Amino acid sequence: MKAAVLYGPRDVRFEERDTPRITHPTDAIIRISAACVCGSDLWPYRGINPVTQPTPMGHEYCGIVEEVGKSVNSVKPGQFVIGSFFASDNTCPHCKAGYHSSCQHKELVGGAQAPLLRVPLADGTLVATPEIPSPELIPSLLALSDVMGTGWFAAKAANVKPGTTVAVVGDGAVGLLGVLAAKQMGAGRIIAMSRHQSRQKLASEFGATDIVTERGDEGVARIKQLTNGVGADAVLECVGTAESMTQAIHSTRPGGTVGYVGVPHGVELKGEELFFEHVRLFGGPAPVRHYLPELIELVWNRKINPGKVFDLTLPLERVAEGYRAMDERRAIKAMLRP
Amino acid sequence: MKAAVLYGPRDVRFEERDTPRITHPTDAIIRISAACVCGSDLWPYRGINPVTQPTPMGHEYCGIVEEVGKSVNSVKPGQFVIGSFFASDNTCPHCKAGYHSSCQHKELVGGAQAPLLRVPLADGTLVATPEIPSPELIPSLLALSDVMGTGWFAAKAANVKPGTTVAVVGDGAVGLLGVLAAKQMGAGRIIAMSRHQSRQKLASEFGATDIVTERGDEGVARIKQLTNGVGADAVLECVGTAESMTQAIHSTRPGGTVGYVGVPHGVELKGEELFFEHVRLFGGPAPVRHYLPELIELVWNRKINPGKVFDLTLPLERVAEGYRAMDERRAIKAMLRP
Repeated sequence: MKAAVLYGPRDVRFEERDTPRITHPTDAIIRISAACVCGSDLWPYRGINPVTQPTPMGHEYCGIVEEVGKSVNSVKPGQFVIGSFFASDNTCPHCKAGYHSSCQHKELVGGAQAPLLRVPLADGTLVATPEIPSPELIPSLLALSDVMGTGWFAAKAANVKPGTTVAVVGDGAVGLLGVLAAKQMGAGRIIAMSRHQSRQKLASEFGATDIVTERGDEGVARIKQLTNGVGADAVLECVGTAESMTQAIHSTRPGGTVGYVGVPHGVELKGEELFFEHVRLFGGPAPVRHYLPELIELVWNRKINPGKVFDLTLPLERVAEGYRAMDERRAIKAMLRP
Repeated sequence: MKAAVLYGPRDVRFEERDTPRITHPTDAIIRISAACVCGSDLWPYRGINPVTQPTPMGHEYCGIVEEVGKSVNSVKPGQFVIGSFFASDNTCPHCKAGYHSSCQHKELVGGAQAPLLRVPLADGTLVATPEIPSPELIPSLLALSDVMGTGWFAAKAANVKPGTTVAVVGDGAVGLLGVLAAKQMGAGRIIAMSRHQSRQKLASEFGATDIVTERGDEGVARIKQLTNGVGADAVLECVGTAESMTQAIHSTRPGGTVGYVGVPHGVELKGEELFFEHVRLFGGPAPVRHYLPELIELVWNRKINPGKVFDLTLPLERVAEGYRAMDERRAIKAMLRP
């Protein structure tokens, strides 16, 4: 089969790779219906994370089960399934507590920008839809594999409740879906921080009540101004840089919470500063698997439409263009169809 | 009057100071019944925080109201009152949310190791007891002024609930009262980390079910071992060093919470490490004022006895010996009687 492989900075190739096979009795092979490029794929693409060897790319996926290993019981060939970037057993104490992305047996899933994918721990990782979905649902179901679950976790981690005043730092797909999540959870006010018109528009569609274009200290001042000098109750940090984290922390009211889901790059927090800011911090890799049943139901019943973040669809063979478009911020998120 | 003044590392003097007076109509003057030396007083005493000028010491206090400014309404001369190290207005949005130590008008209270003390924002800061307390209650009421409220906040910040498995890092007065707080909140298991026999004994009296003497990575390994490899649900960090914070974070289960109340000294948190630890962090200066009514009631009704942390009582004039005894860890906490 031909699939996406990253060789080095800005060098994504669509090339022949071995077809994945069942290697453990707990594996499943999925025929990919749609995959996509993640904001986090841009870290190695941009050379910020080193690429030490040719790396099959992609960790967001949905599709039809092609084959399962001998001990797989919960999914079967022919079903349409969605999984997370972390395979999980769904039985260990961390999974039972709802933190599947810290599963005691977790494994990274990789190589989803391909026609076929091996998913380890299939029973604990994959969730089937009620039936084969109609094609227009595919983008939203694909979004559940990472960005929607991650935006959802950001809002949960930030303790968003009915009436909460929320600010969202980051206008990538995760930030935008953080807006959607906060809206679903009943937030009273949702301030999206964005200076890109198309993203502002989508943020408003998803439920943002205010748009702040300022960044850094000016962005913080604007949030304070919008909240009578108090700060937001809940801030979703969806970028992962030192600047965005600082902006998030300073935008939060004392006793409020920062939910951070951008993989931190070069973030160092000074204990004493954090102490006197008096804010709660919670984040990490989103336990996407934990939210899949609930989010599949919301998509299935047309309550949410997270697939709107895909503003570029390409055939898989043009994967390199998907990376370029996202790198240059011409696209919010690129969907790939094998 | 004569009172405690810190001149430099290990140089506490008991010397003549101006008698405090009402300087703002919102002030009160308190005749101190008892004051004490705080673990945080040891930072400047040891020269870790620089002492740039002779500094009146002490921020924990209870006593009889001697005089109030013109606009003070909630307390009156003759009442026995307790206050916090941060004066607060009790009316701003942060106070209303329960975070009095981030009050928009907060002021540090200082110079309580003295016969008389000026307390700013008296209406929002001081809470009176139902009557003049009997003498045996004084130590426990004094403890509410900081260490008990701080231990209480550590447990609240760490999200201690009925049945929670708790670990406490730090066996100073705050850590020990964190044990007491966790017990009051219904924790199922309380692991105290201590290698000092007298402190272990008090931890057990306050409700610790397990004592761990190991520190650092070995301490973490022991906590993991005691919790079937999972980690504690809630960890109270009551020291403030890089080592204690690391120990606390690594002892916490994914999705669990570190409540940190030790003023951080040299603590730097790596964003990426924190991200993958998947733990909630919350702390800061304890909103002691918020908890005073509830804690006064518990002490008044003999439900808790936090005054047990005072294992040394000295006349105020021997204040320097109180600092020495705590610095050398001969005493858990020294009470001073003017």
